[in-house]
This record gives sequence, structure tokens and C-alpha cells, in this order.
Amino acid sequence: VILRVLGSAAGGGLPQWNCGCTNCCAARAGDPATPSRLEESVAFSADGEDWFLIQASPDVRRQIESFPALWPRRPRHTPVAAILLTNGDLDHVLGLLCLRESQPLVIYATHEVRRGFVDGNSVYRTLERFPGQISWRPFDLDGEQPLLTADGSDSGLAVRALAAPGKRPLHLEGDGDPAPGDNVGLLIRDRRTGGRLAYFSALAALTAPVRQQLAESDCLFVDGTFWTDDELIAAGLGERRGRQMAHLPVSGPDGSLDFLRTLSAPRKFLIHLNNTNPLLRADSPERAALAAARVEVAHEGLELRL
Amino acid sequence: VILRVLGSAAGGGLPQWNCGCTNCCAARAGDPATPSRLEESVAFSADGEDWFLIQASPDVRRQIESFPALWPRRPRHTPVAAILLTNGDLDHVLGLLCLRESQPLVIYATHEVRRGFVDGNSVYRTLERFPGQISWRPFDLDGEQPLLTADGSDSGLAVRALAAPGKRPLHLEGDGDPAPGDNVGLLIRDRRTGGRLAYFSALAALTAPVRQQLAESDCLFVDGTFWTDDELIAAGLGERRGRQMAHLPVSGPDGSLDFLRTLSAPRKFLIHLNNTNPLLRADSPERAALAAARVEVAHEGLELRL
Repeated sequence: VILRVLGSAAGGGLPQWNCGCTNCCAARAGDPATPSRLEESVAFSADGEDWFLIQASPDVRRQIESFPALWPRRPRHTPVAAILLTNGDLDHVLGLLCLRESQPLVIYATHEVRRGFVDGNSVYRTLERFPGQISWRPFDLDGEQPLLTADGSDSGLAVRALAAPGKRPLHLEGDGDPAPGDNVGLLIRDRRTGGRLAYFSALAALTAPVRQQLAESDCLFVDGTFWTDDELIAAGLGERRGRQMAHLPVSGPDGSLDFLRTLSAPRKFLIHLNNTNPLLRADSPERAALAAARVEVAHEGLELRL
Repeated sequence: VILRVLGSAAGGGLPQWNCGCTNCCAARAGDPATPSRLEESVAFSADGEDWFLIQASPDVRRQIESFPALWPRRPRHTPVAAILLTNGDLDHVLGLLCLRESQPLVIYATHEVRRGFVDGNSVYRTLERFPGQISWRPFDLDGEQPLLTADGSDSGLAVRALAAPGKRPLHLEGDGDPAPGDNVGLLIRDRRTGGRLAYFSALAALTAPVRQQLAESDCLFVDGTFWTDDELIAAGLGERRGRQMAHLPVSGPDGSLDFLRTLSAPRKFLIHLNNTNPLLRADSPERAALAAARVEVAHEGLELRL
């Protein structure tokens, strides 16, 4: 599998439009240690021809233009075979409405994520202008499934969507009961090379099944939203702890780093970093602590082969 | 009034993500005659402190970062005093959902445009997380009204929203009857300098009131979506004529150019150009015909003072 990071920041990106925190100011000033970042998304492919996107971020148009493999090859065309959604947060789904130019789209998602975006959403009708404009393919939470291209042919890849502790999107808070399909991690397996990718960009806790899958992967992307649980509070920018927002912090006795440092995967990345996270500064002591655990911060333009 | 163009293209921008037409390919190849363009939006201000945006395009985050006057000046802040919407097309309103980081926003729009975005739109709840997150101020279609900053103080500017032939957004096609408030042009007047700006980025026809307002303005922005009525059909990229999509073409016996050439305003611009429009190529004969009528194509970064 070939993989390219299209965006590494949490919702709002870096800089965030209405934020004048240290990191946002450094990014605006062009500080080379604190580069601007787009909202979280990754593209992957078995063959370099058909591409799968994880998430459809609000930055999706810019992300497609940033990577020539995703450019159309005919007057009306896209190499995007399908889009995989891990939850219904707006920073993962809003870009679907940017991909509305009468182009058929295939979307893999759980029933909960599909309904959270489609039900009662009048603007979604812009994606229902002709029969078959959107083809939803449900994730099977019980096991691995083949990942099919737009025309239904075998991509050579398989995906397992694993329910992971998370939350419903903000616009559905308080609506109904939480369900396992609200938030998933993705396990991508290349059936030819055997390479295994684990992708958990929103993770409220490291459950035993999640730990096991991370331990068995060759490359992993894990929720790097917050370095500390009280990061927003300490910066005076919010009242909620990371855990209350369903993001396990990286540092601390119960953070993700203590587990990630024990894993032997050749490449271990954090992704979905909030604009307040000190890991966004390449010269921060927090980044040095990360490197000591052989964990990296994902960045736009990063390409890997598994 | 100080004015800055943030985006000059129609929905989809240039290049459009799934389009391999001549213009989109030239823009991707970096042809200096065919620069990339963002989706239509303009910022204006009386004093350079408080800024008003026309439209909230899907490119709004990038547009704010492109113009330092729109950057926050404190840890949580925006110089955007209000956003003015001329119709409910997604390329004008989708950006509102990108401006959701717990920031109070003021939006000027007609009742029809507000309801077309708010009613039955579950994702809009992300902009209703606390009382007063969004303050809608209705346009008065019967006359001029003062343009107020976020805290309700006088901006020194006045606005008149003039009903103009247009259409409802695609996601509401077939819902209810057309109304005058579906699409408006904006007439901005600086009460100190007397400068007058006319802004009609979607215009299905040049009615007598529209002609009169354009004739009395010092600077005008007019719908430049299509050069010819059958542009999409001729390119093999669509089945509808420009007029069927509520966009009067620029050229031809009943096009807008024949009227615009008669106007003596010092600056006359086309804006909201579709990716198929030959005017996007600076070296095209169509662009030369435009220049002969003293009409310009708006472009990102253009700044004016009236």
C-alpha cells in the first residue's frame, strides 16, 4: 500500500481562523519549526491508480490539488475510488459537500456515521441530484471486508473497521444513545504485500482490542489531538478536558505515549493535532520526548510504502 | 471603503477537483496566464479595522489566512464584523460551517437565504452551541440600512440589498415558490467618502432597477460565470444553458457586456467565473474583447479604495 498524508491537524487546522495562540501566530509568521497544517486526511492506494481517502475534510479541494495522483485524467474524472469515514465529526465529513460537482462518489461508513450526516440534513440534497450520485457502503464491524473500487472491482486491499471509544459529532450531542459505530479505527491490509496499517485518529481510550491491533500493525496513526488533558483550559481557550472531548491525551500516566513507546512498528505517527498542541513546534521539549519513544508527528506530503 | 477580493471563481474554484478541461489543466500546470482561483468572496471595510465579508465560501479559511487584516489580534478574536450573503448557494454559505470554533458571528441575509440554510439542516446545530453564537440580521429589501459592526456600532457604511433575478440553491430546487429574497445584489455606500460599490455576483437578467444601480456606482462587480450561454454544453461538461442556471452570459446580443461597456464607472469587474470560462485565460481573445469594453476580471489579492 502507498500512503500519503494530506492533512495532519484537528478541526480548524493550523492556524485556526479565529485563534491567536502561540502556535497559530508562529504558523502565520512563517516559523519553519511550526508549519501550517491542513485538517486531518490521508490518501492510500494499492496500485497508485485507484485512491482511497480517509475523511473528507473541509480542506479537501486544496488537498486534492496538493497531490497530482488525485488529479482528474479526463475532462470529468477522479482517481478517488472511495472515501472512508471514521466518525461523523464535521472536520471529517464537511468536505463531501465540496465534492458535489455531479460526480458519483462511493463512501464507506458505519450506519451511525451515515445517518448522522444524511438524516435531517437539507444541504445533503445537493449530493442527491441524480440516482447513484452517492453510494454508501456500510462498514462491517464484525470483521474484515474487501475494499472495492468505484466500479466494484477488487482493489487488492482489505479493511477492518474496529469500534473505538469516541463520540458522536457536536451537532448530534444529546441526540439518542452512543453506539459502537459512532467512531471506528481502520485496519488496512494489503493482501499482496501483507503490509498492515492501523488508523485511529479519534480515540478516547486504549481498549484491549485497540491495543492488540496497534501492536500487530506495521505502521500506525493515532489520535494526537492534545498533549495534556487540560491543554485548552491551561491556554484559556476552552473549558473542557481532552477526555471530555473523547481525545486521550498523549502525555501523562494514562496517556497514549506510554503505550506507543512499547510498540515495535517501524513507523508510529500521531495525527489530528489540535492547534494548541506543543508537538506542533518541531523544537519543543514535548517533540523531543516523542522522538525518544520513536513516535513521529504526521505531516502534509509524507509518503510511505508498506 | 477599502475592498479586497478573496476569491473570484464560481463554485468549485479553479481548478475544480474533478475537472480536466483546458482551463483546469492549465491552472494545475502553473500556466501564468491561467492562475488558480478560489471561490467567490470579497472583504470590505470603512476603516481597515472592522471587516465585512461578502459570502462565506468553502475556501474561507484559506481566504482569511491570505489577508493579514483578517487575522485575529488576540488569543480568541476575529476582525470579521459580519458576513453578508447574497443567496443561499452552497459556494456562498458552506464556509459558515468552517467558522464554527465557538466564535460569535453576525450574518446579514434575507429571510429566504437564512431559512434555506437553517431550516431542516441538522449540521447547522454546530453553530448553535451557545446563545448568541449566530446573530442573523435581515436585509431590508425596501431600502438602505446602516451596516453595523458585531457589537452594533456604526461602521460608517450603508448597504442596500436589491432583489435581483436569480434562483434558489440547488438543494432547495423544487421546494416552494421563488421569492424576491432568493437572490440579491448589494449596494454599499461609504457615508464619509460617498463611494458606491455595486455587487451582483449572480444575475439571471439585467432588470431596470439593476441597470440603474450599476449606472450610479463607482465600482461594480457583476456575474461573470459564463462567457456564452451554451458553454457547458459545448465543452461536453453539462446539459444546461447558463440562463437555465440563472446566470446571464457575458457575451452575445443579450449578454451583460453590451450593457457594461456603456457604463462610465472607473472600475468594472466580472466575478464568479466558472472554470470553463475562456476569460480565465489572460491571453484569450475573449479577455481582449472584455478589455476593449474597459471591463476587468476580478482576481485574488486585488485591493481598491473608493
